[in-house]
Amino acid sequence: MSAATQLVPIQYEPVLRAALLEDLGTAGDLTTDAVVGSDAMAEGALVARTAGRAAGIDIATATFALLDPDVTVDVEVADGDDVDPGEVLATVRGRARSILTGERVALNVLGHLSGVATTTAQLVAAASGHRARIVPTRKTLPGLRALQRYAVRVGGGVDHRFGLDDGVLIKDNHIAVAGGVTAAVERARARIGHMVKVEVEVDTLAQLDEAVGQPIDAVLLDNMPTATLAEAVQRTPGHIVTEASGGITPETAPAVAATGVDLISVGWLTHSARALDVGLDFATTGG
Amino acid sequence: MSAATQLVPIQYEPVLRAALLEDLGTAGDLTTDAVVGSDAMAEGALVARTAGRAAGIDIATATFALLDPDVTVDVEVADGDDVDPGEVLATVRGRARSILTGERVALNVLGHLSGVATTTAQLVAAASGHRARIVPTRKTLPGLRALQRYAVRVGGGVDHRFGLDDGVLIKDNHIAVAGGVTAAVERARARIGHMVKVEVEVDTLAQLDEAVGQPIDAVLLDNMPTATLAEAVQRTPGHIVTEASGGITPETAPAVAATGVDLISVGWLTHSARALDVGLDFATTGG
Amino acid sequence: MSAATQLVPIQYEPVLRAALLEDLGTAGDLTTDAVVGSDAMAEGALVARTAGRAAGIDIATATFALLDPDVTVDVEVADGDDVDPGEVLATVRGRARSILTGERVALNVLGHLSGVATTTAQLVAAASGHRARIVPTRKTLPGLRALQRYAVRVGGGVDHRFGLDDGVLIKDNHIAVAGGVTAAVERARARIGHMVKVEVEVDTLAQLDEAVGQPIDAVLLDNMPTATLAEAVQRTPGHIVTEASGGITPETAPAVAATGVDLISVGWLTHSARALDVGLDFATTGG
Amino acid sequence: MSAATQLVPIQYEPVLRAALLEDLGTAGDLTTDAVVGSDAMAEGALVARTAGRAAGIDIATATFALLDPDVTVDVEVADGDDVDPGEVLATVRGRARSILTGERVALNVLGHLSGVATTTAQLVAAASGHRARIVPTRKTLPGLRALQRYAVRVGGGVDHRFGLDDGVLIKDNHIAVAGGVTAAVERARARIGHMVKVEVEVDTLAQLDEAVGQPIDAVLLDNMPTATLAEAVQRTPGHIVTEASGGITPETAPAVAATGVDLISVGWLTHSARALDVGLDFATTGG
Amino acid sequence: MSAATQLVPIQYEPVLRAALLEDLGTAGDLTTDAVVGSDAMAEGALVARTAGRAAGIDIATATFALLDPDVTVDVEVADGDDVDPGEVLATVRGRARSILTGERVALNVLGHLSGVATTTAQLVAAASGHRARIVPTRKTLPGLRALQRYAVRVGGGVDHRFGLDDGVLIKDNHIAVAGGVTAAVERARARIGHMVKVEVEVDTLAQLDEAVGQPIDAVLLDNMPTATLAEAVQRTPGHIVTEASGGITPETAPAVAATGVDLISVGWLTHSARALDVGLDFATTGG
Amino acid sequence: MSAATQLVPIQYEPVLRAALLEDLGTAGDLTTDAVVGSDAMAEGALVARTAGRAAGIDIATATFALLDPDVTVDVEVADGDDVDPGEVLATVRGRARSILTGERVALNVLGHLSGVATTTAQLVAAASGHRARIVPTRKTLPGLRALQRYAVRVGGGVDHRFGLDDGVLIKDNHIAVAGGVTAAVERARARIGHMVKVEVEVDTLAQLDEAVGQPIDAVLLDNMPTATLAEAVQRTPGHIVTEASGGITPETAPAVAATGVDLISVGWLTHSARALDVGLDFATTGG
Repeated sequence: MSAATQLVPIQYEPVLRAALLEDLGTAGDLTTDAVVGSDAMAEGALVARTAGRAAGIDIATATFALLDPDVTVDVEVADGDDVDPGEVLATVRGRARSILTGERVALNVLGHLSGVATTTAQLVAAASGHRARIVPTRKTLPGLRALQRYAVRVGGGVDHRFGLDDGVLIKDNHIAVAGGVTAAVERARARIGHMVKVEVEVDTLAQLDEAVGQPIDAVLLDNMPTATLAEAVQRTPGHIVTEASGGITPETAPAVAATGVDLISVGWLTHSARALDVGLDFATTGG
Repeated sequence: MSAATQLVPIQYEPVLRAALLEDLGTAGDLTTDAVVGSDAMAEGALVARTAGRAAGIDIATATFALLDPDVTVDVEVADGDDVDPGEVLATVRGRARSILTGERVALNVLGHLSGVATTTAQLVAAASGHRARIVPTRKTLPGLRALQRYAVRVGGGVDHRFGLDDGVLIKDNHIAVAGGVTAAVERARARIGHMVKVEVEVDTLAQLDEAVGQPIDAVLLDNMPTATLAEAVQRTPGHIVTEASGGITPETAPAVAATGVDLISVGWLTHSARALDVGLDFATTGG
Repeated sequence: MSAATQLVPIQYEPVLRAALLEDLGTAGDLTTDAVVGSDAMAEGALVARTAGRAAGIDIATATFALLDPDVTVDVEVADGDDVDPGEVLATVRGRARSILTGERVALNVLGHLSGVATTTAQLVAAASGHRARIVPTRKTLPGLRALQRYAVRVGGGVDHRFGLDDGVLIKDNHIAVAGGVTAAVERARARIGHMVKVEVEVDTLAQLDEAVGQPIDAVLLDNMPTATLAEAVQRTPGHIVTEASGGITPETAPAVAATGVDLISVGWLTHSARALDVGLDFATTGG
Repeated sequence: MSAATQLVPIQYEPVLRAALLEDLGTAGDLTTDAVVGSDAMAEGALVARTAGRAAGIDIATATFALLDPDVTVDVEVADGDDVDPGEVLATVRGRARSILTGERVALNVLGHLSGVATTTAQLVAAASGHRARIVPTRKTLPGLRALQRYAVRVGGGVDHRFGLDDGVLIKDNHIAVAGGVTAAVERARARIGHMVKVEVEVDTLAQLDEAVGQPIDAVLLDNMPTATLAEAVQRTPGHIVTEASGGITPETAPAVAATGVDLISVGWLTHSARALDVGLDFATTGG
Repeated sequence: MSAATQLVPIQYEPVLRAALLEDLGTAGDLTTDAVVGSDAMAEGALVARTAGRAAGIDIATATFALLDPDVTVDVEVADGDDVDPGEVLATVRGRARSILTGERVALNVLGHLSGVATTTAQLVAAASGHRARIVPTRKTLPGLRALQRYAVRVGGGVDHRFGLDDGVLIKDNHIAVAGGVTAAVERARARIGHMVKVEVEVDTLAQLDEAVGQPIDAVLLDNMPTATLAEAVQRTPGHIVTEASGGITPETAPAVAATGVDLISVGWLTHSARALDVGLDFATTGG
Repeated sequence: MSAATQLVPIQYEPVLRAALLEDLGTAGDLTTDAVVGSDAMAEGALVARTAGRAAGIDIATATFALLDPDVTVDVEVADGDDVDPGEVLATVRGRARSILTGERVALNVLGHLSGVATTTAQLVAAASGHRARIVPTRKTLPGLRALQRYAVRVGGGVDHRFGLDDGVLIKDNHIAVAGGVTAAVERARARIGHMVKVEVEVDTLAQLDEAVGQPIDAVLLDNMPTATLAEAVQRTPGHIVTEASGGITPETAPAVAATGVDLISVGWLTHSARALDVGLDFATTGG
């Protein structure tokens, strides 16, 4: 079954272009240019080798269009679908050279984003039955934040602030410089606009008690044992969002979620994601 | 003990700059700008939280210099050193704002590169006692190939071709289009210069026998069972380098290495690397 | 009296560099290169010709450093100071060529940012005595949003969302597509993270009544007569921020502010700002 | 009535692309992506809210094409036409998301350029009946010179030199360094090619008398009272173009033009332009 | 006779775009925009004025497509064909403005690349009857290496290493720092991967004897008299490629080739290439 | 004798940076990084191997500073000096790695620019004794126009218009579209500002007679036999600059200059320049 190709947001194109130029160098694909005739035609199926959550299909296949506007793409599953081993995600057709030259970059993008989505989906499943949602962090790889965050959403996660400029998160070091939570929150409130929310990181229940007395929107409960975390959630007024963080895994997520915390943030979703295994099945079609 | 800061290659700067701009957006670090005074001074120690192989210290700390040329860096361990939990890799000193604003990008770079190096070192150790060296692939993350490859070398690995333009690697799809190994090698040889080597991917011993009769420099033995791989290594003439690939892990690497293969190539070193946990210990110093 | 030069945020540099290259073309400053010797030294004082609020002094003088790292700058007043006609904002010293070649770009930046800040300060003054704060919009000039928003803050304004990605603002067209305010807010809430606030634009009191029944953070009261606006502010629950917009000027701002509205947003602060008149008083110093 | 879309010069694209990326951040349009379905179709009419001179219609609507190549544009009036309140300048049709996401950038470009053109046209009208033509200066906003200059031409103005590299304009500071007008003109003449013209700025009639004795093409009569200006125009030989500058407004322009001066240059056309009010009338069309 | 247009590799586009922007400045083509109506249509034939080897036809004509996607191109001869004076290489059709504005950049690209190819072909012919192949060096013009190397291949040459990163070439200065050929080769071998070849530069037979005892792939025989060169070729074992360099011209190439050397490298092919004279024959076609 | 290093104009830096990245690829200088220790120090003398006019010394040596800010440069001769074989142009000192890695790019820049300057100087000498000055054209290499034009000026040439945007040059094709010289000049005059000059290309005396009756500043006498050219110069009124073009060489330049023409324009100065032979003499200095 075939789904329409979606627009690839303009923000994603520079990463794809950079990845192609990185792989091509300036001399280009020595092997394909030598071995494959310029008029040979082919089709390639992007196939999942293992099970997981597909993410980045339109983005990855846009790689071929950057190389060669004549390549056509049929997308077979939509981002967010769970796929089985052997399932075809999309089929590309056109010059054999363009398909072979773009293959690695497309697979690198697709495998990585699907890997992030798959891991996110596993955590979402582990926390199911509770209110807790899975959120990413700023622990992303250089230049890949927008793409990685997209993959987290495809996996069922929910966004955290995107960068330093779209939310206030007061951490221990900020508190140390400011001379306390109260002073730090006051300074932040005096500077920011009405569309910005304020979150404060706390490590102990004592810090929590001070923080929740301030005009804040969320509290980051960092590295707390589960029992302490549960107590912290209890103590936090209902209008303040609670976020748990600190090395949470699919194994520990159920217990964390059972504390009633609103959010579970996970750095390794993006800094240590395992790629989904995706390959290209290739067939010549004449030319 | 302090080591001199090395020059950061000019090729790496664009990635660091892009990572900073990605995190800063255009409005910058709302929290730090609001909470921390512009004249507050501080120092921050980049500290390993877990054991591993350090990589990217000079690169990561160059992040601070891009933000603020007045930040100074003392590097405590060199890239390639093994570090213990709690060990300080480098200390940065300067405006508190610059240290806090650059912290996340610097740690993202350092944690990722050290993670790649650490994993590589584990594979190198697993293969020790044999001739096999660990090599990376083109399965890198978009825009990060140069940095990831550097980290593999720091971990004790050895380079493969960097991109499509600095080596010929004839894969199954190329062979299919060309109509056989012999034709493919001939076409490649006719096109390339004297500084380019030719490697051919084979899946079976029959393909190997055909390939080694051609003027090639290396053979990629893909996804072979260990016994077949051992036989393949035996059959390959001594002037042709043998490379094994296909999901090799620290657990399976000893048996693969024991076949006498020259190279073990590992895609997940770069596409699925787990970051080393690195943090910043921060202290104000006046101002 | 002299103040220390502040760091110019890394995000602002591309605009300055582009402005210089735009003015220099590729052949450079024909006049200065022909008429002024390469070893002539000079100093230039950046002087306000009319009264206003200074903004962008460090940013504007950074222009000279991009051309010539040997130029030194003494900043005499800080961003946010009110200046009188004839008051010196900063003094630059170095090669006469560098000062003359960079003069126009530096003045263009300084005059524009000070103009935005001055206008903002006038509106802030007009609304004084009330709770209303002045906020900018996304009606900025192409490529200049970060700089213009900085100038608004220097003028005493407070930020609105920076761009499409750091806040939800549901406008009439969104409501039309979604089929109503309730549906639109529900869709937004389902998609966004916990750090994102939601504002809804309403044109009538009936729309307001529907909107404030939804889980929103702010309401944009667009183009309402003052009496209606006052009524709207009364009807809006205290936890929802009220924002008035629609051609508000220093003349009408007092009445608008007197309604008790929280925010007055003004597009022409940035899309139609009048520059502050700033000039360069130049003197040769030998060489 | 419909006019064909013109080619947008390749030089203008980078500004549009930068403006889009500035507004989208990396996370994109949170509101539209959440509230509007990817298959909803719509049309939007770009409508003048006040009367003025249209400029930048093709440029502004090219914004939508950068986001989404499937958007189609019907241009209703040509750049340079005078438009009435309510008049439709162009209609765009396509995905509702693309129209809503690109709306603000397109309107910012269109409103600004039409504002510059409108103001220019007012000055041109004020000077009508005399030989004087209206010319812009280098007092443009960073990165926007090409677009602003285009708008001045659409408004009926005539170009001045574009930048430092395409004309010699010897100002008071150059004269001071060179040690006099004669020396400055000599040095310039010795350096420049045959396609470059030379203009000299003078503040007094005495300076004028010295300047016009030199081989120059134009003289800039800066900040002279009208009577002095008239005398200066009289004294200037016919082969030398006369340019008046210094805070000239629609009110003072008739008297300045009546002196017989050739050119009236006006900095605030570009540094302090008031935008034309342009909006988007939006309607869904299915999908 | 007409040949299909080939894909222009994505790596070449930035050079074409930069060349266009360099020529257009920001104000564009003053002459054409003033003199030629926007709806005038024309065709232009790219014609060889002198005999030579055509190279870069698709690349050069892609210039027009960057300016105006409606321009169509008919390619009449393929890259690598020898052309006679007056022979048409390609015909472009479309807006007269687009053809006239793009003409100079297209001709500059086409004339330069064809010039490099023509010179290469002359050297190839001079060496014919021997095994020697003509190879380029890294003595290319800034930013043009990929294009120049392409032209060398079109002229019948064969690639050398493309840059510093895709081959080891140990020169006299490296040997001096390392303390000898043996040490230098050892250090290189320890660092590089299995896909990288090693070449050593030698000036004397004594150096050659030391070098060929090392595990190297090629030897660069620099500036040797022909008799010495012949002796060097004799002494070099068959598995090591021999390369002669040093001011070799079409006049001296036969004697050099007669020594039996494998490669003749020539720097002036790229650093001092004489352009092929190519012009545009233009005809209006209505509009 | 040592001369102070001059500022390298900001416009030239992108070309140098691109040239370095082109040579380094992303893996960098394999040879130097392997063979030369990171603490080895050295000095390198940039030496002319043949006689010529030096150009680009500061620009070329700025290459090293981009790689390594610790490299110091002593410039021994100034741009525009004539140098003898063996003469040292500049000496660079610093890390041996930085000098060896930057060597090729620096020499490519220096050799090319000095070659252009040397050739220009030869033409200037050939035309000496007459009023004719040597001017370049727009027949430059992609991306290198600013640098090549600079070198022409160093060689004693004088600038022509830099690009399409800083002068009007009406050629035969423009005349054909416009329907005659008179119409073309009128259209141009109506569009351009007072700082732009107008030149018209003519091939015959009849065309000349028509052209000089128009308000033009210069006339391009294309490909005329010397006698016709002399007649054309006689017929041209004194206020119109005369420019001869068409394959003029040092051999034919004296006769062309003897016609009394004002300018001789030469395309091959830039499109077919022969590089000056420049090398680097290298010595280690410890470390």
